[in-house]
Amino acid sequence: MKGLHVAVVGASGAVGRAMLKVMEEKDFPVAKITLLASKRSAGSVLYYKGEKQVVSELKEESFQGVDLALFSAGSSVSQTFAQSAVDQGAVVIDNSSAFRMNQDVPLIVPEVNPDAVTDHHRLIANPNCSTIQMVVALKPIYDAVGIEQVVVSTYQSVSGAGNKAVEELKEQTQALLDGSSNEPVNFPHPIAFNIIPHIDAFLENGYTKEEMKMVDETKKIFADQDIRVSPTAARVPVMIGHSESIYIKTKAPIEVKEAVKIWDSAPGVAVIDDAKQNQYPLPIEAAGRDEVLIGRIRKDLHEEKALNFWVVADNLRKGAATNAVQIAELIIKKERV
Amino acid sequence: MKGLHVAVVGASGAVGRAMLKVMEEKDFPVAKITLLASKRSAGSVLYYKGEKQVVSELKEESFQGVDLALFSAGSSVSQTFAQSAVDQGAVVIDNSSAFRMNQDVPLIVPEVNPDAVTDHHRLIANPNCSTIQMVVALKPIYDAVGIEQVVVSTYQSVSGAGNKAVEELKEQTQALLDGSSNEPVNFPHPIAFNIIPHIDAFLENGYTKEEMKMVDETKKIFADQDIRVSPTAARVPVMIGHSESIYIKTKAPIEVKEAVKIWDSAPGVAVIDDAKQNQYPLPIEAAGRDEVLIGRIRKDLHEEKALNFWVVADNLRKGAATNAVQIAELIIKKERV
Repeated sequence: MKGLHVAVVGASGAVGRAMLKVMEEKDFPVAKITLLASKRSAGSVLYYKGEKQVVSELKEESFQGVDLALFSAGSSVSQTFAQSAVDQGAVVIDNSSAFRMNQDVPLIVPEVNPDAVTDHHRLIANPNCSTIQMVVALKPIYDAVGIEQVVVSTYQSVSGAGNKAVEELKEQTQALLDGSSNEPVNFPHPIAFNIIPHIDAFLENGYTKEEMKMVDETKKIFADQDIRVSPTAARVPVMIGHSESIYIKTKAPIEVKEAVKIWDSAPGVAVIDDAKQNQYPLPIEAAGRDEVLIGRIRKDLHEEKALNFWVVADNLRKGAATNAVQIAELIIKKERV
Repeated sequence: MKGLHVAVVGASGAVGRAMLKVMEEKDFPVAKITLLASKRSAGSVLYYKGEKQVVSELKEESFQGVDLALFSAGSSVSQTFAQSAVDQGAVVIDNSSAFRMNQDVPLIVPEVNPDAVTDHHRLIANPNCSTIQMVVALKPIYDAVGIEQVVVSTYQSVSGAGNKAVEELKEQTQALLDGSSNEPVNFPHPIAFNIIPHIDAFLENGYTKEEMKMVDETKKIFADQDIRVSPTAARVPVMIGHSESIYIKTKAPIEVKEAVKIWDSAPGVAVIDDAKQNQYPLPIEAAGRDEVLIGRIRKDLHEEKALNFWVVADNLRKGAATNAVQIAELIIKKERV
């Protein structure tokens, strides 16, 4: 197979760096790599498979000769440059929220809806981190017994807000341990030793954009307008790895053993669920892994058609970079690039 | 009013110290105070209203002349000594789980079921921290429109596991910031920059004892065997203050405005809910307060008879010490001591 000319937009960001790492690990067919970022980050040096790569400033004409462009530099960058990349011949996989709900743009989680990508799509959206890990966990149960309702509360790590947010958590934590304090910059309140039930902007209905992503993206990915998601998204003082406490009401009853069996044979999932050995998914153990980890699986106490469980994934990898690279692999398999 | 001879069992623990602080602040009618603890802590010095108090070793005969004994030294201590305190003439308010589900022992949250204490009760149980703040929040809505289902996910601070657990979080966090690590002692896994979905022991049904407390104690406090609670309890790297993400299915529809109005006039509750000003309950702001803070109040997106909201309280105060002292005040008001 011939290698591709791959551009990574937002290469120096937390997700951009994870994209490079994931492509290296997967031995993704890269013939040439172009790292792009804002003027501010241009000139900085990154490495791909041990080779030095200088980050260039993102411009209209940056995509000449590019086969595949992975965007992870925020919505406004995608809105400005993604179409231009497509026009120059690239297939774009966009990690921002810019095009996710656009009906002409497929929103893909390869374990869930790989067939939503068809030949004419040159721009594909990568879902939000908290949605991806949730739908990977839901999908096999959805297929087996149907799901009518999901109540989900998230415990989202600071890396979801970027490298600067990780530094802020470290510095703020050190300041508190030293008896001083440190003003919040990347979050609306201090995040060190705190929980902030607020991610992304508030909407008129009282939900945050982050919460509504989980509602709307889930419907689109399952192509099911009837699946009801009741979300609460909270930021926690964790570096990497989002956790989710999930209650589902299924259409038919399902036993824990059956659910475990289904998840054990599902793609992209690892069941970690052994109470006797204190084994269940933890963000510090999910960091660096590509699977969605599922545990604390238990039948609801009252409702025959309901389960409770705990889902953790690396938000930079499966929640972003890994899923984007998997979408690229899916397209390659379909001989689209 | 004559003052009481008050004994505090477990005085040097996190909750014991909070009990002393709450009694000071409330100017609780103390004539004499006796501080009791295990042999290990005996001899340590605490202060009550500026006066030095030496902690004595807890023994069978420690309760002679005691009017009111506040126990917060774990279940086995309560099982060994509470009855003896009652036999010596004290009214016992027990913060452990030892007697909570005993049908002869009232389980009291003064804002919820003050009338469950009647004249013949000499031993009264204080509910679990995560239950107390939840039922204080639920009660006014329960009275207004009925509640049939509660799905709750907790974000519980380390102080719920005692002073040593707080020190462990600090030391483990410092170690990680310094690039080293630190074995867990008070938790089954490292808690620094992590989330542990496991509090108290696992039971055969896959739930933890902590989770089942929220189920069983809620039924008892509401005297309603039909209220269905689906709980997930997780430990988070926060010093003080438990947060809870709550979804409720009500029996009749209720609008957000109506719920806010009901909570605004409810005892023990403070509504903090102003998205425009980024105001919602945070554990770092709940620490040191006695109210249960409620915010992020929003109508469910799909179900007319459902609300989502966020509840935070100081687990050492309203979740333990304040509630215990309020029970004592309730008994004094009923002229029982």
